[in-house]
Amino acid sequence: MSNRIITISREFGSGGRTIGRMAAQKLGIPCYDQELIEKIAQESGIVKTYVEEKSENIEGGWLSFAVGRDYYGHSLQDDLFRAQTKVIRELAEKESCVIIGRCSDYILRDFDNVLTVFIHASMEKRAERIVTQYGETEKDPVARLKEKDKKRKAYYQLYTDRQWGETENYHIALDSGALGLDRCAEVIASLY
Amino acid sequence: MSNRIITISREFGSGGRTIGRMAAQKLGIPCYDQELIEKIAQESGIVKTYVEEKSENIEGGWLSFAVGRDYYGHSLQDDLFRAQTKVIRELAEKESCVIIGRCSDYILRDFDNVLTVFIHASMEKRAERIVTQYGETEKDPVARLKEKDKKRKAYYQLYTDRQWGETENYHIALDSGALGLDRCAEVIASLY
Repeated sequence: MSNRIITISREFGSGGRTIGRMAAQKLGIPCYDQELIEKIAQESGIVKTYVEEKSENIEGGWLSFAVGRDYYGHSLQDDLFRAQTKVIRELAEKESCVIIGRCSDYILRDFDNVLTVFIHASMEKRAERIVTQYGETEKDPVARLKEKDKKRKAYYQLYTDRQWGETENYHIALDSGALGLDRCAEVIASLY
Repeated sequence: MSNRIITISREFGSGGRTIGRMAAQKLGIPCYDQELIEKIAQESGIVKTYVEEKSENIEGGWLSFAVGRDYYGHSLQDDLFRAQTKVIRELAEKESCVIIGRCSDYILRDFDNVLTVFIHASMEKRAERIVTQYGETEKDPVARLKEKDKKRKAYYQLYTDRQWGETENYHIALDSGALGLDRCAEVIASLY
């Protein structure tokens, strides 16, 4: 297999998605992010809005974990993860690309041609960025970030045996707030 | 202040020290590691062998934390940390350099001209490396690594308010086992 894949895991508001697109552009390979949603929806037969909302986030806590499970402990969320796994593995087998989020680092853990990246930034820098990117809401940006962090973490930990954001899971982790998006994209492209 | 500093924190056996030296050489700046021991010993009046053994490691557990403290809860280890802080801050004020370990990332946390790096690698790669570098001992290399990790972690957590090795504490974290020492040194030099 001669494809080479970059997976970008990222904290909400860290600019990881933008960095992934920039690195892909530098390397002349496609970047999959929103495009995955379409593919996962097709594969699973689950409606796109549900895929969009639930393909990286779950509500934390045992109650929400239990809700929506059938007699065998199986849920729509599990179907979604199975479809997501299939779509991401097929992509990685088909072509060189950048894949944003969706536990792709874990899903491709037995592929030896993957560069796994984690992008993070301080709460302050991320709050600044989400207000610029997505506008103000009634909710304080720091509270929005904390809620999103919690959901992504819970999702990652439900479907993998790893802790989200731990250095050991990634070949490279970068602080985009301190280094800037451009330099992060350059470093990633240079390691490819 | 126009000096620029790189701090390298590293897991034992990850090659972080070598990477630091390589990056310093590329940049034509000094790298402080063993040299710090001499300076800290002079500053503190504590014998070099104690500085060498205790400037990054402590035995874990409450008992060892309590032993050697005087009536005011003060210990020789605290004197050592104070001397270490003074030496590292003075170095950073004096010249551009690479500083290996010794909580230098934390000690220089209020300096704005610091690039903080964390080097890690899988247990397997590190075990391979310590056997090549330091030879076999009666103790299994994985057990040696686990013991050393524990002591460095305990030391870092005693003197800082941070968790050792967490992505958020570093501008960049690199898996030297997957990327190789050369590429890690190149990335660090390119970000300087």
